[in-house]
Amino acid sequence: MRHELQAIVGIDHVRAPGAADLADATEWSGLRGRADAVVLPGSPEEVAAVVAWCYEHDVPITPRGGGTGWAGGAVPDGGVVLGLERLTRVRRVDPAWWRMEVDAGVTTATVARRAREEGLYYPVDPGAAESSHIGGNLATNAGGPHALKHGVTRSWAMGLDVVLAPGERVRLGGPVRKDVAGYDLVSLLVGSEGTLGVICGAWLRLVPAPEASSSIAVACESAKAAAAAMERALTCGIVPAALEYLDDGAVAAASAGAPLFVPPGGVLLLADVEGDPVQVARDHDTLREALEGGDGVLAVAEFAARTDRETLWRWRDGIGLAVIAQRGGKLSEDLAVPVDRLAEAIDETQVIGVRHGLDACSWGHAGDGNLHSTFLLDAADPAQRAKADAAAQDLFALARRLGGTVSGEHGIGRLKAGQLREQWAPAAVAAHEAVKRALDPKGLLNPGVKRP
Amino acid sequence: MRHELQAIVGIDHVRAPGAADLADATEWSGLRGRADAVVLPGSPEEVAAVVAWCYEHDVPITPRGGGTGWAGGAVPDGGVVLGLERLTRVRRVDPAWWRMEVDAGVTTATVARRAREEGLYYPVDPGAAESSHIGGNLATNAGGPHALKHGVTRSWAMGLDVVLAPGERVRLGGPVRKDVAGYDLVSLLVGSEGTLGVICGAWLRLVPAPEASSSIAVACESAKAAAAAMERALTCGIVPAALEYLDDGAVAAASAGAPLFVPPGGVLLLADVEGDPVQVARDHDTLREALEGGDGVLAVAEFAARTDRETLWRWRDGIGLAVIAQRGGKLSEDLAVPVDRLAEAIDETQVIGVRHGLDACSWGHAGDGNLHSTFLLDAADPAQRAKADAAAQDLFALARRLGGTVSGEHGIGRLKAGQLREQWAPAAVAAHEAVKRALDPKGLLNPGVKRP
Ligand SMILES: Cc1cc2nc3c(=O)[nH]c(=O)nc-3n(C[C@H](O)[C@H](O)[C@H](O)COP(=O)(O)OP(=O)(O)OC[C@H]3O[C@@H](n4cnc5c(N)ncnc54)[C@H](O)[C@@H]3O)c2cc1C
Ligand SMILES: Cc1cc2nc3c(=O)[nH]c(=O)nc-3n(C[C@H](O)[C@H](O)[C@H](O)COP(=O)(O)OP(=O)(O)OC[C@H]3O[C@@H](n4cnc5c(N)ncnc54)[C@H](O)[C@@H]3O)c2cc1C
Repeated sequence: MRHELQAIVGIDHVRAPGAADLADATEWSGLRGRADAVVLPGSPEEVAAVVAWCYEHDVPITPRGGGTGWAGGAVPDGGVVLGLERLTRVRRVDPAWWRMEVDAGVTTATVARRAREEGLYYPVDPGAAESSHIGGNLATNAGGPHALKHGVTRSWAMGLDVVLAPGERVRLGGPVRKDVAGYDLVSLLVGSEGTLGVICGAWLRLVPAPEASSSIAVACESAKAAAAAMERALTCGIVPAALEYLDDGAVAAASAGAPLFVPPGGVLLLADVEGDPVQVARDHDTLREALEGGDGVLAVAEFAARTDRETLWRWRDGIGLAVIAQRGGKLSEDLAVPVDRLAEAIDETQVIGVRHGLDACSWGHAGDGNLHSTFLLDAADPAQRAKADAAAQDLFALARRLGGTVSGEHGIGRLKAGQLREQWAPAAVAAHEAVKRALDPKGLLNPGVKRP
Repeated sequence: MRHELQAIVGIDHVRAPGAADLADATEWSGLRGRADAVVLPGSPEEVAAVVAWCYEHDVPITPRGGGTGWAGGAVPDGGVVLGLERLTRVRRVDPAWWRMEVDAGVTTATVARRAREEGLYYPVDPGAAESSHIGGNLATNAGGPHALKHGVTRSWAMGLDVVLAPGERVRLGGPVRKDVAGYDLVSLLVGSEGTLGVICGAWLRLVPAPEASSSIAVACESAKAAAAAMERALTCGIVPAALEYLDDGAVAAASAGAPLFVPPGGVLLLADVEGDPVQVARDHDTLREALEGGDGVLAVAEFAARTDRETLWRWRDGIGLAVIAQRGGKLSEDLAVPVDRLAEAIDETQVIGVRHGLDACSWGHAGDGNLHSTFLLDAADPAQRAKADAAAQDLFALARRLGGTVSGEHGIGRLKAGQLREQWAPAAVAAHEAVKRALDPKGLLNPGVKRP
């Protein structure tokens, strides 16, 4: 296999898998895979040739971006790891036309930075932006705090440069803002976690950058008080750019930079507004009044200066890793529920932790009803992993009971394989499987991942 | 057949097709279909039973919403017309949570109105809103002027209540703002023009209504001057809510309410801004300066008062019908091109008209690069239809040459069946057909529509 693949990508770009190729951000929960080789194509044509070779020889393919996924989707189970890390070209920036074409291996942070340099804004801000690839963001349909106002990755993808089975490179969409000529295969590929095709590049939509922004942090005495504050924020007439929450445990894990103290059982809300300076000032005041004007609000902090605000959101981005640092491990699920059920989901996460003898905490994208419900794992005590797996089943049941979903933004990967069958009606699952068979008849694209 | 269907929906709800059931808005280009019966189910369960009966008996199904489609997608070719007009319930409005659940047969205008009543906004505004159904909007992924800022119908659909072949009712998504648990079948159904399933209802996302808005009309001496003005508008730092254009012929067709005179070869731009009053005032000034600050701008009119602005946009909505009224008929295509190629597409539309001996005009969603390129047809001269069909082929070739698409928002329907094969690579077309077979193995859902 090695020499055949080297014939395609060059001898330097096929290697035996190292530890880092066999895990992703879920390694803190103990997941580790196996693979026969790591292949690093240098162009979309090489990606197509690799996929064609694998498809002909029945070799499974696990596409890999930055490896920051929280669902184990880039963790291989044999076959070839197809890394996109050499596809790092920003192909084109058209500032006047609010768009950019990039290779799949460009990092999320690079996309955001290049947009900013042109006075534009790529608002999708998943927390590992310096490491995650735009290809990985597309493959998982990543979200982030600012998805509340701006939507998730799918909202910003106009076109894909993608390799489909059995190894054909095609363009879906392009530098065109609207297109209904065919079925929406762009959206089908987005979020498909490498199971329907390999993304080599994308046309992204951008918008003029907001001139100003400012943030507010509010400590509430309970999840219920936080939910009430959030309801006030959603009904005060403005559209916050972000509306996040962290429970007491999540705040405590990163207590160093925390904007406010949160007492046991309490919840911290973070809100952000964007726009022109005059409007931001007005929206900020409206939002602050809404947030603080009710029972159970303990303290409020404001972040108007740019550097203060950036520090706040950098702190927020670090929560996941700070929680891992507590004990060396965690198991985290990203339920999404109807936003009116958020308080219940926050409290139930704690109750499920108690029931299974695990320390729990949660944080997430409150305005989108998206929780990262997490159990702390002691790296030195492998038995905790079994407890956490059982507790995760309770979380999934909770999401279903509240009319929500087992994944808001991280995907199904390997860790949640099998959950869709519990969530969807049999006919919908059958449609899901029929689509998979239609685009990957041999089942070689990331087998085992996103299984219903 | 009649009695079997009556057994499902009741004797009053099956009827022989009348003229109105066999045509849609494309009747002005001469398209008329045939059908064996019109069936009007009264509930999603009845929709499922009708689809199941048809699927078992190999009877083709043409779903029908308001019949305002511009692509002939609701024009049947035998079998059953399945009308959704009895499904008119607004199932639920949750203003605090920015969402609404509606039956498929609720009109677009009703959705917008119910949202407004709660201080919320459903911003998708296709031009036949009083007649088109939300189900039809979803099935075509309809756009409208305000798609520039807010995106098309797909951006606002959180969940679908849908009947899939062979007659199973399923829920995809729901009152949840983010969901990546399965492939994005919601987006796959949206824009599928009744060929992958029958939409019975939907959860829609809403946002707080902007408090203020105002509009500007600018007459330019040429398409090139208009494109330059548009470029200035897109680079002045604000996000216009809408940016439309009409060429001289389109303006002349509706000269009565026209905001400005446009000379031969000239183009009218309409721009809209939304937000809080202070910001709207600022954005309006910024945008006006940008629009008027260049060569070839002939006149500017401003519409700040609410009623003036509403009158302007109602006038804009009526352009399609006003153009038909010129000669009794038209053939219209809705190309979308990269927005930097707009001027070329506007001028080429005229050149194609000259080449085929047809009067041409165009208008559309300039900021999205979406043109309605139109040939006037004399209702008394059927030979013109053949000329227009030939001219349409030139328009499709134009869209492809400019890197665009043959349909930005109206869909493929019957009128453009076969065009995707020219636009997409063979492997992409194969994927499209595989998806169709996966979800409609017998090919009974709107056969002949959206064929690649
Ligand atoms: C600290 C931290 C914070 C995070 N915050 C967020 C957040 O706020 N929101 C959020 O949504 N996620 C978040 N994540 C999760 C993760 O960053 C996202 O899922 C991200 O989109 C993964 O991108 P990646 O390039 O690392 O993909 P990988 O982990 O390499 O892969 C993820 C999945 O996509 C597939 N894939 C990758 N590239 C391609 C490609 N080119 N073609 C086809 N398939 C491909 C893989 O096979 C795998 O199934 C966070 C992760 C960390 C570690
Ligand atoms: C004056 C005028 C202005 C217009 N302006 C715009 C505009 O600005 N933007 C735009 O995008 N369009 C516009 N249109 C086109 C049209 O209004 C849209 O395509 C609209 O979405 C069609 O909705 P409908 O309910 O009338 O659907 P129909 O015409 O009844 O059907 C359209 C297609 O959808 C399918 N369908 C309908 N309902 C369902 C369902 N419940 N389940 C499955 N399939 C279904 C049909 O089979 C058909 O293929 C305009 C039309 C007119 C006449």
